[in-house]
Amino acid sequence: MAEPILTPQAEDFPKWYQDVVAKAEMADNGPVRGTMVIRPYGYAIWERIQSAVDQRIKAAGAKNVYFPLFIPESYLQREAEHVEGFSPELAIVTIAGGEELAEPIVVRPTSETVFGEYMAKWVQSHRDLPLLLNQWANVVRWEMRPRLFLRTSEFLWQEGHCAHASYEDASAYATKIHLEVYNDFLQKVLAVPTYVGIKPKSERFAGAINSMTCEGMMKDGKALQMATSHELGTNFAKAFNITFQSEAGSSEFCHTTSWGISTRTIGGLIMAHGDDKGLVVPPVVAPIQAVVMAVRDDEAVHAACRELVLRLQDSGIRAELDISSGSFGRRATDWEIKGVPLRIEIGPRDLAVGEVTVARRDTSEKAQVQLNTVVAHAQILLEDMQRLLYSAATGHRDSNTHDVSTVEEAITAAQTGFARLDWKTVDGAGETVLKKEAITVRCLQRRDGTMPISDQEPDLVAIVAKSY
Amino acid sequence: MAEPILTPQAEDFPKWYQDVVAKAEMADNGPVRGTMVIRPYGYAIWERIQSAVDQRIKAAGAKNVYFPLFIPESYLQREAEHVEGFSPELAIVTIAGGEELAEPIVVRPTSETVFGEYMAKWVQSHRDLPLLLNQWANVVRWEMRPRLFLRTSEFLWQEGHCAHASYEDASAYATKIHLEVYNDFLQKVLAVPTYVGIKPKSERFAGAINSMTCEGMMKDGKALQMATSHELGTNFAKAFNITFQSEAGSSEFCHTTSWGISTRTIGGLIMAHGDDKGLVVPPVVAPIQAVVMAVRDDEAVHAACRELVLRLQDSGIRAELDISSGSFGRRATDWEIKGVPLRIEIGPRDLAVGEVTVARRDTSEKAQVQLNTVVAHAQILLEDMQRLLYSAATGHRDSNTHDVSTVEEAITAAQTGFARLDWKTVDGAGETVLKKEAITVRCLQRRDGTMPISDQEPDLVAIVAKSY
Repeated sequence: MAEPILTPQAEDFPKWYQDVVAKAEMADNGPVRGTMVIRPYGYAIWERIQSAVDQRIKAAGAKNVYFPLFIPESYLQREAEHVEGFSPELAIVTIAGGEELAEPIVVRPTSETVFGEYMAKWVQSHRDLPLLLNQWANVVRWEMRPRLFLRTSEFLWQEGHCAHASYEDASAYATKIHLEVYNDFLQKVLAVPTYVGIKPKSERFAGAINSMTCEGMMKDGKALQMATSHELGTNFAKAFNITFQSEAGSSEFCHTTSWGISTRTIGGLIMAHGDDKGLVVPPVVAPIQAVVMAVRDDEAVHAACRELVLRLQDSGIRAELDISSGSFGRRATDWEIKGVPLRIEIGPRDLAVGEVTVARRDTSEKAQVQLNTVVAHAQILLEDMQRLLYSAATGHRDSNTHDVSTVEEAITAAQTGFARLDWKTVDGAGETVLKKEAITVRCLQRRDGTMPISDQEPDLVAIVAKSY
Repeated sequence: MAEPILTPQAEDFPKWYQDVVAKAEMADNGPVRGTMVIRPYGYAIWERIQSAVDQRIKAAGAKNVYFPLFIPESYLQREAEHVEGFSPELAIVTIAGGEELAEPIVVRPTSETVFGEYMAKWVQSHRDLPLLLNQWANVVRWEMRPRLFLRTSEFLWQEGHCAHASYEDASAYATKIHLEVYNDFLQKVLAVPTYVGIKPKSERFAGAINSMTCEGMMKDGKALQMATSHELGTNFAKAFNITFQSEAGSSEFCHTTSWGISTRTIGGLIMAHGDDKGLVVPPVVAPIQAVVMAVRDDEAVHAACRELVLRLQDSGIRAELDISSGSFGRRATDWEIKGVPLRIEIGPRDLAVGEVTVARRDTSEKAQVQLNTVVAHAQILLEDMQRLLYSAATGHRDSNTHDVSTVEEAITAAQTGFARLDWKTVDGAGETVLKKEAITVRCLQRRDGTMPISDQEPDLVAIVAKSY
């Protein structure tokens, strides 16, 4: 048997991840430490993620804008927790246009501060609220232990920034974004089930009064934070003087929120569905849903392949033609590594009987299908695969989430999956004990699995795990 | 008569531009010198520009990628002309992660160098060529005299970077991008006619052997460079060792190209079509094509407005509802400033007779139209307006382009428009004389108006003008 192309997951999961990112041509390390070059296949997945998230954000009423990359250093210092949280990770421009700058400039690690400054100008009256803004941008946070997609010194994301008239409005809108934009996208597009909850105080965003999270379980049982939404209370409104005249005529501080999802989700997609043969890309987010491969270098076969690609594309399937002359086995392995949902193979013998071979990436099933019905067949398989990936990931998550009673049991459970236990058992000293084992509280939930309004609710449970 | 809201164009064109950018809520100055905050209305136009250009780029076969914002300073130094051209404009990061960096990092002013480094890794054989890549990104060039959209220290753009096996392939593909992506987009989407040609040597991109340009004429008779495509010869291939094994087995340098279009085009859109009442946005690129306004605060009127918006949207027209309670005159003026192509006004008297008032932004014509046929009417008006804006801009350009014989005549003509004269009359000393008058050679063309292959062709004409 041939040497496996990828390190098996069971042997060394981080090495498998590195291998698959390289071999599937998703990304390369950039020349500056911790930066990333996203290659065409990786970027095509990101474009589909962007489009799905952007549609949902627009449906939720927020409008896209673009704020500058450069933020005066003094802005960050206006919110005490914020500057403390981000200072160690900043990249700072000190020279521009050939001269030393009088005030150093920070390359945005996130944009609450600069949005705050302009919200203060744009919001005058309660009639200007809510102000619902979003931007797609790159941000920079210096990373000591970079990993492609998961932790990079520069990453791509969207960051929403909103101002509301009351705590209730702000909380309700951030929750709506969290559930109807992020969690809906993660489930329906990436096929990743999540635990949705709020962060304990120790894990909140710097400057927030509440942080919501969607936590996915990767194939190695570790957690990945896949999206976060923050209620900032009046902290940034006070730091940037974002006030409005209420209906009653008084001047009030706005309640602001921020929320983001990033290229990190691509890492989550890889680790939630990939296997020893490579990526497994859910059909909804797959740039190529079906590749039509010529088994032999034969003109009649090529013509049939070309025609089938057009028929698939006409019916809305993202199909790609592979009639290249390399070894068939090697080409098939490459498409497998890239996680393309369906391989449709056509050879001279297939053609003679009017059939094609359809291979499914997730189950590895192969079937002979009539050439004249293969398009309808492919549509059914793609829908089935999207469903099955979600239910397989849900099964994996559920069977690796253990209800435990003590911090010690949680430590044991977190070696291979998640532990769930009463928050009051962990709160305080328990968190410190867990952290020594590189385990954190990923989120707090109500006992029925729904998201609490605040960590002050009684009877919460904590989901704890090792994480990326 | 009320005070005009905008400075009239004839009085002070730059002030008019500033006024309209602010009053139409397109953009604000950022906090760091020369940076820009693109507001929702401005960004919605940019999204439509992106989408139109991206579709054309994909149709031309290039694939999107994302390269890092940060480039090692040493990369820029590898191509002598390139570093000389960009050094004065660089923003440099010297501190990151709390420490002084051993090698300073440049915030990308453009990405030829870093693409070059990875092309060298990815290209091995002639089978890997052509390598056709593109990225949508922000870039930074420190600006001493910033102007929103036109010259900003940070701007958004796409930059294509390709490697080819021969000079001919590189030249043909760059030309295809220039004509079929950029010029087609400028004409059909932005409705801006251009002079397409090549730059004289003095105006070439730093490191290029040939630079193609699309030059638009603004309403004040000045030129705006709206898109450029560069042939880089083997300059970057030699600097970054981008080589391939030819079919014959020899090692050869690639021929590379780069090409870009930026948020600057929004400035061009404003100055090519705007008038004393504000923006005039061509329907194809307009985020809002028709606004349906209630003339009175009346429930039956509101209901009719809502229903009409849905009917317009169902037929693919981007329609917006305005049933706000402010003064009708003020609201109408605001939509006029924003350049929305059609205002459809409904009042109680209109409703009684089953009619609406349709006001066209470009001609200011108003007509009474049957409510039940207004959707079809609007479609016709939008198509007509797109055509008319293009032909009006073409008429303006042609009547302000003067064929002259001497450099002195060119200087006179360039006070109010463009001058066209034999390139051999300008080449050399003429360029220096023009530059003293802040006039430059915008492009070189063949006598029939087509684009030459190189400035070595005989019998070229020069288009000269003042410019942004």
